[in-house]
Amino acid sequence: MNTHLSRDVTLCEVGPRDGLQNTSTFMPTAQKKAWIAAELACGVTDIEICSFVPAKLIPQFVDAAEIVAFANTLPGLSATVLVPNFRGYQNAVAAGARRITVPLSASEAHSLSNVRKSRADAIADFAAMVEANRQLPAPARPTLIGAIATAFGCTIQGTVTDADVLFMVEGIVRAGADELAVADTVGYAAPAQVKRVFRLVRDAIGPALALGAHFHDTRGLGLANAIAAFDAGITQFDATLGGLGGCPYAPGASGNVVMEDLAFAFEAMGVRTGIDLDRLLALRRTVFEPMGGLETYGHLGLAGLPKGFAART
Amino acid sequence: MNTHLSRDVTLCEVGPRDGLQNTSTFMPTAQKKAWIAAELACGVTDIEICSFVPAKLIPQFVDAAEIVAFANTLPGLSATVLVPNFRGYQNAVAAGARRITVPLSASEAHSLSNVRKSRADAIADFAAMVEANRQLPAPARPTLIGAIATAFGCTIQGTVTDADVLFMVEGIVRAGADELAVADTVGYAAPAQVKRVFRLVRDAIGPALALGAHFHDTRGLGLANAIAAFDAGITQFDATLGGLGGCPYAPGASGNVVMEDLAFAFEAMGVRTGIDLDRLLALRRTVFEPMGGLETYGHLGLAGLPKGFAART
Repeated sequence: MNTHLSRDVTLCEVGPRDGLQNTSTFMPTAQKKAWIAAELACGVTDIEICSFVPAKLIPQFVDAAEIVAFANTLPGLSATVLVPNFRGYQNAVAAGARRITVPLSASEAHSLSNVRKSRADAIADFAAMVEANRQLPAPARPTLIGAIATAFGCTIQGTVTDADVLFMVEGIVRAGADELAVADTVGYAAPAQVKRVFRLVRDAIGPALALGAHFHDTRGLGLANAIAAFDAGITQFDATLGGLGGCPYAPGASGNVVMEDLAFAFEAMGVRTGIDLDRLLALRRTVFEPMGGLETYGHLGLAGLPKGFAART
Repeated sequence: MNTHLSRDVTLCEVGPRDGLQNTSTFMPTAQKKAWIAAELACGVTDIEICSFVPAKLIPQFVDAAEIVAFANTLPGLSATVLVPNFRGYQNAVAAGARRITVPLSASEAHSLSNVRKSRADAIADFAAMVEANRQLPAPARPTLIGAIATAFGCTIQGTVTDADVLFMVEGIVRAGADELAVADTVGYAAPAQVKRVFRLVRDAIGPALALGAHFHDTRGLGLANAIAAFDAGITQFDATLGGLGGCPYAPGASGNVVMEDLAFAFEAMGVRTGIDLDRLLALRRTVFEPMGGLETYGHLGLAGLPKGFAART
């Protein structure tokens, strides 16, 4: 959650997880660490740093434990890891993870395909993590985030209804999540749906639980959807530097919302992000040039800031 | 204006003018005609077809008169031409243009640089066109649109204020424009400013005058800005197929809002465009492949429509 008085929204960099997950080239551990530290220095205090999945499935995350240990040495960093199941949760806890996000699909077809569990079974798994979490001594107890994936549509079943999302919200809250997130995993959402769903979810969970938003830019609506969610009261947003990640279903198509474009969008509306935009733009080169041909996206990286922009913020 | 009962917004294809204006390769006249006719057949009834500028300045429009004559043979097409000055207006009228748009910059620096006139002199020129227009017999009298360029910022002077925009609105209305448009010529706008400015302009001109919006996607906010303008009551939007046009100030950066992405954005929100999206997507190939290496943009062209999308609209 945003504890910085000097900002209005919190943008979480998920490139080291969601970006690299869709990148076939392995990023050396030292470069991952340098990226995390450098983006923190730009004012991006929230970073999703890795995923605890079997290395034989996604070799990119073979160094997850080392990345967590490194992140824990960085003052001011709020680092999150992703886990797909109970085994991943155990490994993340053993590594010292302080924030753990668990994706749970609102699409029954996607849930069965992705984690080979029904939605109800996935919620039961999440409840088991919450229960295990409660057994940990408070200093070692990570924050557990239930993230509703494919909340706006699914590449397998197509439509996902508001009722599907609310089914997941109810299950995740009942299981005892510390925070929630709602994700447009495949870039199907449009602003009207975004406003409606986030208002429904907020009404369902009440004002106390933190609620984040995760959008993809697959059909060009990533920024518009984030702004629609902001209009609906959301202040936590995922994005990736350079839009790293692409879309696994459409070669050449963009994936995650572009961090620098999203930060610009908010700053241009007078909504403070706490991020140094010039420094963030320069970081694109630092992070991606050593990696050779990584496909990146984004408009600000090509067009630059508007003339006189600094004076407006 | 939208006279189609079956749609909620009117999207005007400005590629044959704003797209080709920034394209160094000449598009053969026959291909321009084929594009205009084919996009009309997709349900895009409003097209800005050419510009009446001296051919020695922009050779792309050497065939402007022939394009107007062709457009006038197409039933159901509302064709607009752009003119930069009184001489251009005279040539457009002589060619039989039925709708003429005149850009007038809200930035004094841009006005002086672009047409070598102060804003006041540009408004006086526009008033002379209105006066000449009134002398024409009604059947030959085109609709005259005053389009406020650089209304949200300027690459030369930087900031453009709301007062700058309202100065232009007042001058254009007093001159006797039939319609108005407000344009983010260089892609500086963000949604909060867009809502504020369009509400101010609507309040200033009253409900009767048509008011269109023209956005560029230079910093990725084209769709978000269009949706913000829609939220402020605007229902007429410019865009270009494939985002043709680029940004003359930033190589590789996008220019005009992408027509197919904008149409998708509205349809995905249940806002009817009257456009056949599948046919429009196929038109990208038809129009651009014969032209070889034209740089195009857009997300829908890469990602396609969401699964089950047809059922939603």
